[in-house]
Amino acid sequence: MRDKVVGILGGGQLGRMLAASASLLNVKVVILDVGESAPAKQVIAPISPTLAHVDGSFADPQKIRELADKVDVLTVEIEHVDVGALEAVQNVPRPTPLAIHPSPATVHTIQDKFRQKEHLASRGCPISDFLPVEPNEESIRTAAQQLGLPLMLKSRTLAYDGRGNFVVREIPQIPEAISFLSKRPLYAEKWVPFIKEVAVMVVRTVDGEVQSYPAVETVHKNNICHLVFAPLRSRDATLPRRAREVAEAAVKTFTGAGVFGVEMFLVEDGSLYINEIAPRPHNSGHYTIEACETSQYENHLRAILNLPLGSTALKVPSAVMLNLIGHSSSMDEIDAIVNVALAVPGASVHLYGKSECRKGRKMGHITVVADSDAQLRTRLRPLLESLPSSTPEEIDRYAPPPPAPGSGFSDPQPLVGVIMGSDSDLPVMLPAARILDRFHIPYELTIVSAHRTPDRLVEYARSAAARGLRAVIAGAGGAAHLPGMVASMTALPVIGVPVKGSTLDGVDSLHSIVQMPRGIPVATVAINNGMNAGLLAVRILAAGTPSLVTAMEEYLKELESDVMGKVKTLEEVGWEKYEVKRT
Amino acid sequence: MRDKVVGILGGGQLGRMLAASASLLNVKVVILDVGESAPAKQVIAPISPTLAHVDGSFADPQKIRELADKVDVLTVEIEHVDVGALEAVQNVPRPTPLAIHPSPATVHTIQDKFRQKEHLASRGCPISDFLPVEPNEESIRTAAQQLGLPLMLKSRTLAYDGRGNFVVREIPQIPEAISFLSKRPLYAEKWVPFIKEVAVMVVRTVDGEVQSYPAVETVHKNNICHLVFAPLRSRDATLPRRAREVAEAAVKTFTGAGVFGVEMFLVEDGSLYINEIAPRPHNSGHYTIEACETSQYENHLRAILNLPLGSTALKVPSAVMLNLIGHSSSMDEIDAIVNVALAVPGASVHLYGKSECRKGRKMGHITVVADSDAQLRTRLRPLLESLPSSTPEEIDRYAPPPPAPGSGFSDPQPLVGVIMGSDSDLPVMLPAARILDRFHIPYELTIVSAHRTPDRLVEYARSAAARGLRAVIAGAGGAAHLPGMVASMTALPVIGVPVKGSTLDGVDSLHSIVQMPRGIPVATVAINNGMNAGLLAVRILAAGTPSLVTAMEEYLKELESDVMGKVKTLEEVGWEKYEVKRT
Repeated sequence: MRDKVVGILGGGQLGRMLAASASLLNVKVVILDVGESAPAKQVIAPISPTLAHVDGSFADPQKIRELADKVDVLTVEIEHVDVGALEAVQNVPRPTPLAIHPSPATVHTIQDKFRQKEHLASRGCPISDFLPVEPNEESIRTAAQQLGLPLMLKSRTLAYDGRGNFVVREIPQIPEAISFLSKRPLYAEKWVPFIKEVAVMVVRTVDGEVQSYPAVETVHKNNICHLVFAPLRSRDATLPRRAREVAEAAVKTFTGAGVFGVEMFLVEDGSLYINEIAPRPHNSGHYTIEACETSQYENHLRAILNLPLGSTALKVPSAVMLNLIGHSSSMDEIDAIVNVALAVPGASVHLYGKSECRKGRKMGHITVVADSDAQLRTRLRPLLESLPSSTPEEIDRYAPPPPAPGSGFSDPQPLVGVIMGSDSDLPVMLPAARILDRFHIPYELTIVSAHRTPDRLVEYARSAAARGLRAVIAGAGGAAHLPGMVASMTALPVIGVPVKGSTLDGVDSLHSIVQMPRGIPVATVAINNGMNAGLLAVRILAAGTPSLVTAMEEYLKELESDVMGKVKTLEEVGWEKYEVKRT
Repeated sequence: MRDKVVGILGGGQLGRMLAASASLLNVKVVILDVGESAPAKQVIAPISPTLAHVDGSFADPQKIRELADKVDVLTVEIEHVDVGALEAVQNVPRPTPLAIHPSPATVHTIQDKFRQKEHLASRGCPISDFLPVEPNEESIRTAAQQLGLPLMLKSRTLAYDGRGNFVVREIPQIPEAISFLSKRPLYAEKWVPFIKEVAVMVVRTVDGEVQSYPAVETVHKNNICHLVFAPLRSRDATLPRRAREVAEAAVKTFTGAGVFGVEMFLVEDGSLYINEIAPRPHNSGHYTIEACETSQYENHLRAILNLPLGSTALKVPSAVMLNLIGHSSSMDEIDAIVNVALAVPGASVHLYGKSECRKGRKMGHITVVADSDAQLRTRLRPLLESLPSSTPEEIDRYAPPPPAPGSGFSDPQPLVGVIMGSDSDLPVMLPAARILDRFHIPYELTIVSAHRTPDRLVEYARSAAARGLRAVIAGAGGAAHLPGMVASMTALPVIGVPVKGSTLDGVDSLHSIVQMPRGIPVATVAINNGMNAGLLAVRILAAGTPSLVTAMEEYLKELESDVMGKVKTLEEVGWEKYEVKRT
């Protein structure tokens, strides 16, 4: 590693995070950007006078040449660079060849969004219909007739963070659109009625092998990335895998090494459309620094240096990234939210060292990690509340508050599903809910009848794991099929509570639940003992959450001290006067 | 944060990691160390000419003064600094007072190990007996008579990484010891026959509040920190908590803010002795960068800047730090192990950018994180194997290989304990073991009889969680008390397998296991169904390990396709000729 020098075109936050990763591996880095205090230059001092950073624009061919002369591998933190200049430096004779990643051809294809769409369409990647348009009313009206309204008008080049996009909702808006997008080459896209935005970071080796990070949900606000949730949750268990497959297939169609950010739209029927691809580390991959075994930045370096790729697996159950976007020319709002973040467990602040704050400028980000989605939202909430631009609706949408304990309503991010075959089982199941309340475990409680709502049973069981549940408690009586049928359609542990009916003393339910065939276990508890089902769920969650082991140990100590209190009372009042309390 | 400037005395690896943390918070840092390319100076470029790094020794009072003039808060990466110089700069009149953390008084106490011991002894902290000695035979012989042999002779000052220690095993060694420790002020310590070394990082606020990181096990080699395992595992469930209490109490006795590393000895009877304390980020806390919610470096900065402390909780189940110590003047050995590390999932490489390699010099470290201790050891093993200094015994000790699948021997780092009341239950329990083999889950299998080995039962159940187990499978027949009694003495989920006896068809066992009282659940599976117990354990572990959810989903698909194969056969051969296979 120590012998190769990496040059980065651009010294903003992506270059800064790349440079920080390079330091860990003793990889020498030279930055090209304007000024001495570009964010990336702050965190990597020049190693020698000959390897000094270059002061100049990443759009200046002369400066690119100057950078190229110092380095062995050239990479970009932004795709809006002069491809001709890249090709020119690649062709300069030198003792050892210059590697450029991503390849100039890839940058050429991607930096023009229309060309990118043509490329993806010709390789069979799923994208929305699109057409070339001229910046005149007739051309756009024709496109609207073919693709329908609303129509997405986009600038082909230099468009990011929503700059260069215009949504034509009605024909009379066309002149306004032309004026807004003036002087830019345009194209039109069929509007995708998406219900969610999804992104996948993919890392591609020099040999063209690809490896993807977990699929994430992205939330944009004013066309700028606002929040990234990892991993993606869905009622559709196949979605995360499908998103990775689409992203990997798309990245395979390009040349050159490094990470690529693939942004996608999810529509109601479950289809995915690629929105756009960035040939570099991406905002939707910042979370990987704290949440994955290897960050996107280190994997970008490994890929372009032809080193083995690192694991892309998540190392925490749940993570969210919140962008810190300038609200005005003052850093005060950013400082205010950072101060809140310092008090949030699991929050890591990344400020980019930008000298000036501007409205809409990316000043930093905060990544929060947590044991569960519910804990994550609890941690995220004060951050969203401290953002001046947050509306109450947004706060409740992305960081919904948990229901008040004992309120009798389900948590929107449950870890445990408590279900029963009939509302008549509620008295038996309530103690399970009370135990989960006591241990602060988010849960949902509802009715799923194996025999009367079989479709609901299938949907519930099949989606349970993908929705983020980690255990299911199912209570049923008589020919009690609910727990076993749920167990046969989920990989999660299912706890069965035999409910005592009017005949056979509950032994019918017990045997129906416990005597499962080989292959599908149900964790059965005592007849009518919903409380123990709740406690078993806590113990199961404790297998992945050490703090719950401690909480359960304290609970066991309380049980012991309760009995010891009764021992004392018995000795004090004598057994003739002792009153047995039944709960 | 942006308004305070932090000065660090020392620009080695600790200063480097502090500086990297400071960048994330836009905290301005000025480094005092010799040369322009000290490791810390490489990762934080001077922010302005007036805030240029200082070129000089951290032992030079003039240079300390020069640094102090530039900063608001002064901190150290090494305690062997000139306390007089610190006190002098603190007394210089200036517009805003200079904060020094740790306080000069703390540095003064700690940098002289004899003074440190006196301090700890007078505050009631557990330390080994010690005596002042003169560097002459008579004085040392007298100490050996009082404290016994072997006797630990230590230099009072400038002693770290084992430099300045001599173990006098026999009286005739005394002249050799005097010669080895020549010209140094000495003291003698009673030898502590430790069975394990333990460390705890503690962060102390300006107001004297303390918060500790998880206790870790440290392994030294040639007196230099070699490995750090987090969290500390033990058969004694109270040990991790006790270690944190000892460390927190000790750090409370000092003044000044920041992190402190507390190194301890564990002896056979479970007692802990403080070995020594470092008033700064410490080698035993490097693992916190990848493994904890807030790293020791960021918490040091937060503490000395009087910001809220970050969470010290682990965010991964298991982590290990391996120091990369120079083996010669060549970096080749270091490069070799780094190349191995790049192929190890969960491994993060930290090279320190030191210009020259030397035997015994700390050149970098590698932190590995994992889902479990067993996975951690599997990941650690190739790293130890690639160290030229590793012996086969060391490799097997710190990264024991798992038993061959199906060999019938227990894994040394089990996640699941499979126990049975009698060896006659083995045929029922074997299928559980086979399932765990199939899913690559490390487990142990043994006999624990509730009625015939009650003490063993208690010891097994009480230590299960602290040893790193996450679930217990217990099989028993007749009056089957084993599962329920284990469940009453551990917070882990316990799976009960009712074993069918010669009478009552196993219903006796089933009811004995499932009908637990409220408060203590046992996850009961079908009579004689050890296989389902294994599968339930896999599902329980999946609650904390998403990859196991996928593996279980694939298993369920296989079950489905097995049956579909039989459907096909039935149609092909007809039911008259169909042969039912019993397994």
